[in-house]
Amino acid sequence: MKIGIAGFGCLGKAVEKTAFCADGAELAGVFTRRPPQTVRTGFDTTVFPFDEISLHRDEIDVMINCMGSANDLPVVTPYLAGLFNQVDSFDCHREMRAHFDRANAYAEKSGKLTLIGAGWDPGLFSLFRLYLGAAIPDASSHTFWGEGISRGHSNAVKQLDGVVDAAEYTLPVESAVSLARENNNISLTDRQMHRRVCFVVPEPGADCEYIAQQIKSMPNYFAGYDTKVHFVDYESFLCEHSGQSHAGTLIRNGEDAFAEFSLRLKSNPDFTAGILLSFAFAVHKMNKNGKKGAVTVFDIPPAELFSAQKERLFSFL
Amino acid sequence: MKIGIAGFGCLGKAVEKTAFCADGAELAGVFTRRPPQTVRTGFDTTVFPFDEISLHRDEIDVMINCMGSANDLPVVTPYLAGLFNQVDSFDCHREMRAHFDRANAYAEKSGKLTLIGAGWDPGLFSLFRLYLGAAIPDASSHTFWGEGISRGHSNAVKQLDGVVDAAEYTLPVESAVSLARENNNISLTDRQMHRRVCFVVPEPGADCEYIAQQIKSMPNYFAGYDTKVHFVDYESFLCEHSGQSHAGTLIRNGEDAFAEFSLRLKSNPDFTAGILLSFAFAVHKMNKNGKKGAVTVFDIPPAELFSAQKERLFSFL
Repeated sequence: MKIGIAGFGCLGKAVEKTAFCADGAELAGVFTRRPPQTVRTGFDTTVFPFDEISLHRDEIDVMINCMGSANDLPVVTPYLAGLFNQVDSFDCHREMRAHFDRANAYAEKSGKLTLIGAGWDPGLFSLFRLYLGAAIPDASSHTFWGEGISRGHSNAVKQLDGVVDAAEYTLPVESAVSLARENNNISLTDRQMHRRVCFVVPEPGADCEYIAQQIKSMPNYFAGYDTKVHFVDYESFLCEHSGQSHAGTLIRNGEDAFAEFSLRLKSNPDFTAGILLSFAFAVHKMNKNGKKGAVTVFDIPPAELFSAQKERLFSFL
Repeated sequence: MKIGIAGFGCLGKAVEKTAFCADGAELAGVFTRRPPQTVRTGFDTTVFPFDEISLHRDEIDVMINCMGSANDLPVVTPYLAGLFNQVDSFDCHREMRAHFDRANAYAEKSGKLTLIGAGWDPGLFSLFRLYLGAAIPDASSHTFWGEGISRGHSNAVKQLDGVVDAAEYTLPVESAVSLARENNNISLTDRQMHRRVCFVVPEPGADCEYIAQQIKSMPNYFAGYDTKVHFVDYESFLCEHSGQSHAGTLIRNGEDAFAEFSLRLKSNPDFTAGILLSFAFAVHKMNKNGKKGAVTVFDIPPAELFSAQKERLFSFL
């Protein structure tokens, strides 16, 4: 399977590493909006300008779209759906339906297959929510994220005036986790379930109190959450807050059954890259068999993730 | 969807209750090897003799096979695969491949679809093992069962001379659970991971010491396990050991990621019945769309479990 990588940030780099080490995958190119000569790949993958990506249509079996979820994917995923088989890890839970419809329109026309939301959440957690939803029909579900760094929230803080760099940790509220474990008919909001801690590097002379106030009152991202803001110097920021670990816990609590799934990741991008690549093999094969349009992880038969090792399937039973 | 139930023990009764309460399912009949007039169903489902089951071929969309896993299913599943769409919860992990092949031969000929191993384990746990196997490729997996009553082990004890009734509890060894959580390159055996506790009602005058010795040395079932045997009178046995709760924990531990899934069930048969019915809808629809032969849960696209509620799928993302 010839793999293309669109976008070469943290996730793109992780996909290059994962694909380089994987049996059956071959790296056909990285596509970047930066000047290609300024981008150095880790495993000698050739770098091409993104605006020439359509010229590579026949050389790539699956494009792994590693651009930013918030601003890039809503535009880039539909565009690439018109050219390639594709996998992305779009992560805005509330926008999945709109993202699906946009991608589907282009993929239906091109006859290619685009899989959206193939990360750990959405992605792996979505699958577990679905199966537990079927197995425990009358129950309440809660997904807690963290402790880990949220890139979306960190970026929102970075964009404030007077901020050099910032990292936002999402943490589950322990008392809310206990409530979800102990009760089968409660409904907790994201704000009740999570708290937020920011580490901010201020510009020299910046008004830290004003920055903290702006963060805490930022709509959607922080307003209504229990948010703490710490100011640190750049050196200790780089030492202590450039990790990529993340975690999540899914609880489904019904009167007759209780299920809990938890995941801890050392590297969010490495883990996401592994999932993207696993599903890329499935997308490639399913398109060969005539499947086109947009799909979610729910449309991929689990066996397709091991289509190259069919005998291994029985070992999971 | 018209449902038939083959076998009317604990699981058959649970399927009748679950199907009676489910939208879109209709109970066409229970099929039993006992004299039909001696079997009373819980929701007025008609009882037919099992040996006339082939006469009902055209009245049933999916047969849910609720016969005993150890002795009945290896024979009955292939037979019914030749007549009906079918779901079973065959539970012998090491025999899945042979069971699959036997069912497949008959289902291919009849043009019907048979799904094997659709319970909680094999079934739900199998799916989670597969997804975690794909997402965390280099890791060790351990599945702990219990605390809960194992029907297979209880039956093995019941068949000994001098035993009136018996219940076997499978319990995870806590120190082994800790080892699986703390190490990503260990391999524990079932015997290291589980211990067994039996509650036995002896016949009057039976040699309890001899019974205990026979249990502890029984090959496959108890030999090599840490097994305790308690003798109790029939009254306290019925009070204290006729529960149906069960539990399981799946741990996948890799260098870069750790995942743990745990499930606690009040009623093993009720939970299994829910899973069987969810997959029965999928089997019915997939056979309508031309799929035939034998399949496992890995061949069912997750979306098929909610094919009647397509819009709900996005809520799981």
